[in-house]
Amino acid sequence: MYRERIRHAGLLDRVTSAEDAASLIQDGMTVGMSGFTRAGEAKAVPMALAERAKTDPLKITLLTGASLGNDLDKTLAEAHVLSRRMPFQADPALRKAINNGEVMFIDQHLSETVELLRTQQIPPVDIAVIEAVAITEQGGIVPTTSVGNSASFAILAKKVIIEINLSQSDTLEGLHDIYIPSRRPTRQPIPVVSPESRIGFPFIPIDPDKIAAIVMTEKLDSSSTILPPDDDTVAITGHLLEFLLNEVRLGRLTNKLQPLQAGIGTIANSVMHGLIKTPFHNLKMYSEVLQDSTFDLFDAGKLDFASGSSITLSAEKYKQVMADLARYKHQLILRPQEISNHPEVIRRLGLICINTALEFDIYGNVNSTHIGGTHMMNGIGGSGDFARNAHMAIFVTKSIAKNGVISSVVPMVSHVDHTEHDVDILITEVGLADLRGLAPRERAQSIIANCVHPTYRNELNDYYHRAVVRGGHTPHLIEEALSWHTALREKGSMLR
Amino acid sequence: MYRERIRHAGLLDRVTSAEDAASLIQDGMTVGMSGFTRAGEAKAVPMALAERAKTDPLKITLLTGASLGNDLDKTLAEAHVLSRRMPFQADPALRKAINNGEVMFIDQHLSETVELLRTQQIPPVDIAVIEAVAITEQGGIVPTTSVGNSASFAILAKKVIIEINLSQSDTLEGLHDIYIPSRRPTRQPIPVVSPESRIGFPFIPIDPDKIAAIVMTEKLDSSSTILPPDDDTVAITGHLLEFLLNEVRLGRLTNKLQPLQAGIGTIANSVMHGLIKTPFHNLKMYSEVLQDSTFDLFDAGKLDFASGSSITLSAEKYKQVMADLARYKHQLILRPQEISNHPEVIRRLGLICINTALEFDIYGNVNSTHIGGTHMMNGIGGSGDFARNAHMAIFVTKSIAKNGVISSVVPMVSHVDHTEHDVDILITEVGLADLRGLAPRERAQSIIANCVHPTYRNELNDYYHRAVVRGGHTPHLIEEALSWHTALREKGSMLR
Repeated sequence: MYRERIRHAGLLDRVTSAEDAASLIQDGMTVGMSGFTRAGEAKAVPMALAERAKTDPLKITLLTGASLGNDLDKTLAEAHVLSRRMPFQADPALRKAINNGEVMFIDQHLSETVELLRTQQIPPVDIAVIEAVAITEQGGIVPTTSVGNSASFAILAKKVIIEINLSQSDTLEGLHDIYIPSRRPTRQPIPVVSPESRIGFPFIPIDPDKIAAIVMTEKLDSSSTILPPDDDTVAITGHLLEFLLNEVRLGRLTNKLQPLQAGIGTIANSVMHGLIKTPFHNLKMYSEVLQDSTFDLFDAGKLDFASGSSITLSAEKYKQVMADLARYKHQLILRPQEISNHPEVIRRLGLICINTALEFDIYGNVNSTHIGGTHMMNGIGGSGDFARNAHMAIFVTKSIAKNGVISSVVPMVSHVDHTEHDVDILITEVGLADLRGLAPRERAQSIIANCVHPTYRNELNDYYHRAVVRGGHTPHLIEEALSWHTALREKGSMLR
Repeated sequence: MYRERIRHAGLLDRVTSAEDAASLIQDGMTVGMSGFTRAGEAKAVPMALAERAKTDPLKITLLTGASLGNDLDKTLAEAHVLSRRMPFQADPALRKAINNGEVMFIDQHLSETVELLRTQQIPPVDIAVIEAVAITEQGGIVPTTSVGNSASFAILAKKVIIEINLSQSDTLEGLHDIYIPSRRPTRQPIPVVSPESRIGFPFIPIDPDKIAAIVMTEKLDSSSTILPPDDDTVAITGHLLEFLLNEVRLGRLTNKLQPLQAGIGTIANSVMHGLIKTPFHNLKMYSEVLQDSTFDLFDAGKLDFASGSSITLSAEKYKQVMADLARYKHQLILRPQEISNHPEVIRRLGLICINTALEFDIYGNVNSTHIGGTHMMNGIGGSGDFARNAHMAIFVTKSIAKNGVISSVVPMVSHVDHTEHDVDILITEVGLADLRGLAPRERAQSIIANCVHPTYRNELNDYYHRAVVRGGHTPHLIEEALSWHTALREKGSMLR
């Protein structure tokens, strides 16, 4: 059985236990692990590392693609193994360690991490730990349900540990397209000209001598945590679809739209799902994570092709998709996140990008990451890669949170991840603000009229009009601009 | 003489007065004019338009490449001709009209304006007014000292007015490289692979039937307003050069560095000038504006090639360069700003980008545009196009302004143009903070230690340490974060 998964004969003797493999990781090392949006992460070695840390404390810098499943970030954080972590996470325990200053978290655009590694602008990866379906005859690594940063980690690392996951379907082989941009200053254009462009290898090409250990595993990916649609997400979806239909009527888009990107999460998944009952057809996705809605759109005959860096599904959908993978395979590509999120490709293809905001302000600046302006939630992820270079950058959020004590629309955001220059359309369940071609004062009027919850509308309007009296391109009462956040912190509510 | 400048015989009869040409512009129209960093702007028609408005009031939307010379933005603003203006300006009178809400200003990334036009996401250009050296036999337009957005304006507009400027050297012909990205979703890669890549035509190809009027002019470009180096700019330059030398020592860069971009202005020009007395050699520029320092670097034998979208020089340097243009020509290209500033090309070439900040905060967020968080200075220009996609994004500013009543380093910036994700290196005359790979708490310590003026250091340190007690990934005292700006507004000083 192992011979089908480890097809390079010279590597069979490197199979070892997770504990032995983990012993290669030493205190102070930088480790690059597979894993992107809870898919395809190395599972056994990090668990063994956390276990070992109980008796043999050590600290590492951990780089991944994005978030890890199987509570790995929690386990590693609680074992105090992480001194530094990049470029993304989404775990409550790790978040706590980041916010109390125990773990130094470097929140990066997901396309940029390996560019920094390649140019030695961050410390090099000592060991890569990569989950794989198989190792090819030449020693190439076939990833599982995500590519993330695995390819560059494996190529740049001094040593590589492979976790062959026997539970991951071997039908995954052939799905991946591994292309690494050539070195600057002699880099050539990245030849992706449509979501279905295949430009690389179906495996990660590395020198097999670097493979220091192989661990056999069977644990599955975690399921996605997406919630079912509710009245608010249905309303948000409705506003967006109505807007897109109108763009078609105006001749600015066709019924094929432009290739779509949707951020991870409940709202984006709900929006994508909403496309099933529309006149749009022959759609394509060029996104980072492919969620349940991608496969529902395939099944509905609406979607022709989907390119991503990972597949993250609910438990039920995972079972169905993996069983039927041969049927979907010709419509799918998984790419390194550097390529799925590359500014060059995003701008070339002209994507319609849908991402989630934590809060936005009356001028259209978006906070995607910081609760109260100080506490990290997850990270910017790919939202900056996509929004900046999109044909159309759309941000969605519910207009209120925590039973109404928080307004998602505020006078000034407490932290900026996306500036007003990069935000075209804002949608809450209340309505949609089309900010394209508008000056800040016009943006404010549109946002207040269309996106704010009625509870907060008068007060926001009052703020804006008092600010306008004082003047400026972007009117603010600077001493009051963050007062809503201050009230939330001090009194537990933005309500006056 | 006109026949050498208007080589398409069928167009000779379209020569007319500026007043007659301006009469084609009607109330409510969207007008796209040439002009980028006070170079190559249409000069006679906008002046005639402002004159006409005295008796025949009208309002237009004005799009340009970037800032205009010859006080045109002032004249148009004071004649109340402008209802909307994009994507950049740098004029005190227009700035005033923007800040009092008379002119709606849309501050855009300079690479994006024509992408929005092409996809009909902003209203179409009715008339383009383009300064030219000549019209070719086939009716192609040869621009003068800038390309800016002229090519797409002329291609997309219904009608085109040409100003043939007889004072602009005809040696400029052959300098330009006009390439327009193909339409999405079938766009191909932009084939620029080095600053010297020539990929298009030396003229703007349009249907000559669209040329509705030709006006002959003789007025020169305005001179640049760059100030000579002072102690502070010399110190900033010193910190940057020392840093770059160390990067070479560490093997991260060679003595050829990477292609350089420098924003317009005194500090950036001073920094570029500082490269003359260094071991760096065979340098290249891929920038938006080429200033005096570009030609000083050519003369010093340090610079091999410079690509930009405009040439903006001091009076003396302009005279010398234009007289010697034949000598420099093989080392120069002027491109559309969509290409000089294109994310695809910037990321591919791996630029070292040096831009000016108005202020930055202890976490490395940069404000490039808004004084006091409310009042527009000039606009974001190309700084976002470059910083986001740079190999290395460097921002420079003096640590204090207005005799010390303003600290350029603050607890929280009052407006964000560049988020901490996009800022690698910060430099003031005090020193340099290398933020690469650092978490926010580490960034704060480096910035406070290295960049803050001694007058403000203790207070900023105190803010940071009190904020850390409260916790968070990015510690802030949210009720106090903008208090320095509030104090400046209310008491005229950030000093306590």
